[in-house]
Amino acid sequence: MSRIVIGVMGPGATATVADCDAARNLGYRIAQAGWVLLTGGRAEGVMHAASQGAKAAGGLTIGILPDAPGAGKQGISEAIDIAIFTDMGSARNNINVLSSDVVVVCGMGAGTASEAALALKAGKPIVLLNTDINSQKFFTHLSQERTFIAEDVAGAIALIQIILRTV
Amino acid sequence: MSRIVIGVMGPGATATVADCDAARNLGYRIAQAGWVLLTGGRAEGVMHAASQGAKAAGGLTIGILPDAPGAGKQGISEAIDIAIFTDMGSARNNINVLSSDVVVVCGMGAGTASEAALALKAGKPIVLLNTDINSQKFFTHLSQERTFIAEDVAGAIALIQIILRTV
Amino acid sequence: MSRIVIGVMGPGATATVADCDAARNLGYRIAQAGWVLLTGGRAEGVMHAASQGAKAAGGLTIGILPDAPGAGKQGISEAIDIAIFTDMGSARNNINVLSSDVVVVCGMGAGTASEAALALKAGKPIVLLNTDINSQKFFTHLSQERTFIAEDVAGAIALIQIILRTV
Amino acid sequence: MSRIVIGVMGPGATATVADCDAARNLGYRIAQAGWVLLTGGRAEGVMHAASQGAKAAGGLTIGILPDAPGAGKQGISEAIDIAIFTDMGSARNNINVLSSDVVVVCGMGAGTASEAALALKAGKPIVLLNTDINSQKFFTHLSQERTFIAEDVAGAIALIQIILRTV
Repeated sequence: MSRIVIGVMGPGATATVADCDAARNLGYRIAQAGWVLLTGGRAEGVMHAASQGAKAAGGLTIGILPDAPGAGKQGISEAIDIAIFTDMGSARNNINVLSSDVVVVCGMGAGTASEAALALKAGKPIVLLNTDINSQKFFTHLSQERTFIAEDVAGAIALIQIILRTV
Repeated sequence: MSRIVIGVMGPGATATVADCDAARNLGYRIAQAGWVLLTGGRAEGVMHAASQGAKAAGGLTIGILPDAPGAGKQGISEAIDIAIFTDMGSARNNINVLSSDVVVVCGMGAGTASEAALALKAGKPIVLLNTDINSQKFFTHLSQERTFIAEDVAGAIALIQIILRTV
Repeated sequence: MSRIVIGVMGPGATATVADCDAARNLGYRIAQAGWVLLTGGRAEGVMHAASQGAKAAGGLTIGILPDAPGAGKQGISEAIDIAIFTDMGSARNNINVLSSDVVVVCGMGAGTASEAALALKAGKPIVLLNTDINSQKFFTHLSQERTFIAEDVAGAIALIQIILRTV
Repeated sequence: MSRIVIGVMGPGATATVADCDAARNLGYRIAQAGWVLLTGGRAEGVMHAASQGAKAAGGLTIGILPDAPGAGKQGISEAIDIAIFTDMGSARNNINVLSSDVVVVCGMGAGTASEAALALKAGKPIVLLNTDINSQKFFTHLSQERTFIAEDVAGAIALIQIILRTV
């Protein structure tokens, strides 16, 4: 039987220090819980920090890259165990959310917003972390049942555990 | 040289009457302006109404379907001239926005939100029509320079004309 | 109702003069027959020549590009009316064949072979033109019912007409 | 640093007993060598047998599914550790080959042929196992440098080892 996969999605080059700190901590705890971490795989921002956190706790990390092999501008995060090369740019965002049992959105940006929206479209639960009140209102309005808001990393982990029990 | 393509994106089965009325009118005026209309191609909601409007004005309509040929649940809109079958579900949303010179977002929903976000991610201008204040705030916050808000269909057409002059 | 679309697939930079001559003639006759021409859209090889032929006869040409807007190495063929930007590299080959009522394979190469194979996988008929005996044996072995072999361009057009009557 | 990934591609429902026996043995030896196994992930044919073989040797198995979660006709192989859901049908074949360091083609069919061709198009080496002389001629003609022919499973493993030393 396939393992539980938790996706962590967030800004790349435009991620804030707070986004990355939260992502690193989140990745660490996801690995500790025995879940597989799935990210966008690049060596920048939230995806990089989450993957580094997961490796620090001995976890397994999957990166779904928008690039062809060898073509990534910032390259692959060295904290990625399995690199899936899609060569399909932002269209790979749909694969990220379809392949995650729960999607944690850490920080916000145009690409991240598309992942949150695609997740809701596919019926996947999302946990919002480190997002502003506008984003929280917008996604809650799109789907009240599947949008969860976490106060901090510990809260996000608690929400994931609750969601996994009900799916 | 390839023709100017205007994308109209909006809810399918969950579209309101107001969304569809605006979309039909918009499609009509897009065709009148000599632009090609691009939609998601299904026989429902905003994509269907916009395509019908464009055909009523003798325009050319392209539908980028999420389905394989013959597999569409609601089938293809009969107002589509050229059906592009992607068989890639919501990942085709990225193709919709990349192939449009301007993306008009008419109404709101999870799929539509993903298209607006993917458009901004790709550097495409979006025109919001028939959207609530939350959506307007959210996308304006994602990109102030590329998010335009239209009061009505005439305003949307005027904004498209201004945007096309500057790109 | 959507129009009949004939796909012409073949090598890009590695196309032979004979491939391009056949493609240009084929594009011309496809447009004369009132069918829409669909190609890979780039300004090189078979796709370029077929599109030029179709425009010379006043036809409508659709190009499904592997690139993002503005990123194409050889750019878009100026003979393309509607450019669909997929930004998904060779994965767009599946869209090419799904969106064509009949796929004409003109010349051979690795990308072209993938399109012929994807067409057969999707249950689409293919017409082989300007291909060697090995290719003819290989694809006929994959699907005897859906692989047709044309002696020349006139033969390819005749085969398309027969196939369209039966689907 | 990301791990070495070996892809095993072959027929699903139409696989022969010989294809599946070879695939199971191959998966076992891939896992023994410490490589990650990547397949199409469904519970049928070559992908299923290879994944079962890899699990029998305690390996890690990745399945790149053509389906959305929950939509797979034959379901996911229970021998898959990490299920990547693409919901993009045969277009996912390109992801399979881009994400594999070496692609082993075991048996032949239309979908498998598309994977072999897409691999060569992307510059990936392929090892042909359990294929007829027509297929061997066809792919060798497409790329003499990157098409390798294995007599049996032991030969395929030896070829993979040689190829990995040179890339």
